[in-house]
Amino acid sequence: MTVQDTEAVATAAAEDEKPEADKMVIIAASGDLDKAWPTLILATTGAAYGMDVTIFFTFWGLGILKRPDAGITGEDWRQKMLGVFKKGSTEKLQLSTMNFGGIGAKMMQGLADDNNVASVQELLELSQDMGVKLWPCQMTMDLMGLTSEHMIDGLDKPAGAGSAISLMKEASISLFI
Amino acid sequence: MTVQDTEAVATAAAEDEKPEADKMVIIAASGDLDKAWPTLILATTGAAYGMDVTIFFTFWGLGILKRPDAGITGEDWRQKMLGVFKKGSTEKLQLSTMNFGGIGAKMMQGLADDNNVASVQELLELSQDMGVKLWPCQMTMDLMGLTSEHMIDGLDKPAGAGSAISLMKEASISLFI
Amino acid sequence: MTVQDTEAVATAAAEDEKPEADKMVIIAASGDLDKAWPTLILATTGAAYGMDVTIFFTFWGLGILKRPDAGITGEDWRQKMLGVFKKGSTEKLQLSTMNFGGIGAKMMQGLADDNNVASVQELLELSQDMGVKLWPCQMTMDLMGLTSEHMIDGLDKPAGAGSAISLMKEASISLFI
Repeated sequence: MTVQDTEAVATAAAEDEKPEADKMVIIAASGDLDKAWPTLILATTGAAYGMDVTIFFTFWGLGILKRPDAGITGEDWRQKMLGVFKKGSTEKLQLSTMNFGGIGAKMMQGLADDNNVASVQELLELSQDMGVKLWPCQMTMDLMGLTSEHMIDGLDKPAGAGSAISLMKEASISLFI
Repeated sequence: MTVQDTEAVATAAAEDEKPEADKMVIIAASGDLDKAWPTLILATTGAAYGMDVTIFFTFWGLGILKRPDAGITGEDWRQKMLGVFKKGSTEKLQLSTMNFGGIGAKMMQGLADDNNVASVQELLELSQDMGVKLWPCQMTMDLMGLTSEHMIDGLDKPAGAGSAISLMKEASISLFI
Repeated sequence: MTVQDTEAVATAAAEDEKPEADKMVIIAASGDLDKAWPTLILATTGAAYGMDVTIFFTFWGLGILKRPDAGITGEDWRQKMLGVFKKGSTEKLQLSTMNFGGIGAKMMQGLADDNNVASVQELLELSQDMGVKLWPCQMTMDLMGLTSEHMIDGLDKPAGAGSAISLMKEASISLFI
């Protein structure tokens, strides 16, 4: 064994021993403000703790990733209706309870501002800055008639349930929110 | 040690070494269409990936396993009311949002059909074909006055929270949906 | 090495080998009766199975820990409104569906009584007796203008998302309910 060999082995061993970051996977299936908030708080906090965080946005959760100016989306009248009633984007999220036609959501965002709690939009941007992977669900995009043009920039490639499951199998923390 | 003995030992050793399938456990506590769908998509996808999948249906989630013709169930007037207002069965699931008295649910199912997304009923049958274990919660059955006659065929024996916890402790993925 | 040393080493080794209890962490983010119930059933069952259980109460979930006589809380009008519309305490939890202005919740509690299912209040007390750790979310307390005076006795110190994540990383079961 030459010195080079020894070094190569030592390097390989070191790489072997280098602990991989713990993984956190969140399935974000709800488009409610009171679900988007904990999703993004957990994601950014996990990333701050050095975890490798992925959020899989599916069903109503996909709305969180829509551009505010996406407009009416889809070709089918049902997809258009979804686009009208679930406008999506972080700006238009509603509370699942105590919403009072949007007043509750505004009230809660105001309270958050005054208490130095980051808004969902700020947390979404922070997630991206911190390297949190944002996966839109391909099946939901097809179902709702959404294309990448309707979505915010900087997302990962649309993925399926199989990819989410493969990731969760290796994750220390998997949550459905 | 005879040849037979050796073979027996070798077989036993091989079986010992055969990696057990990763387990996925889903607690399905909601009877909403938009929760039943991801539950069964994740379950069938997990099974397709070779996982050993169990769904524990509790509280409103138990309704997913009701027969469409279960009729009014229970002896107590409160149980009967539950039976009337929460008819259950995959046919009558409602959306948690944008339901509009059932129109939203029908609309979403139509969209799914047109986009080759399997219906909840199809996914439930597929789950059974793929060996996904479907556990009804015993406590909820008692609470709601449901017996095995009200439930679809092919379910596992009713189980309790303790069994679900024992299983989750060993599982790679545990989700509450 | 003296006899004492040897003993000390043996004791240390034995302690090292003593298996730590499996951990269960539940993030309780909902204040609905039909979420509080499974949260506390899983927590107490887990504790009965020897697990080390922690519930992190955040967002609406914090209401479960409010005293029934907390009254109107907070200084800000929005916090006061939250206090009025989300009175909290186990006594005033509502169902997320079939609530009918509180009649559904009462009906379900009556059914539970008649079927020997413990109430949420009983389960909460049992949790405390069994050593389940109850963590109020500090950020939510600030947001909603709640102080320890508004909360029931026997809670752990308010904690943040980071503490919950650290705990979940080591847990066998982590659920978001």
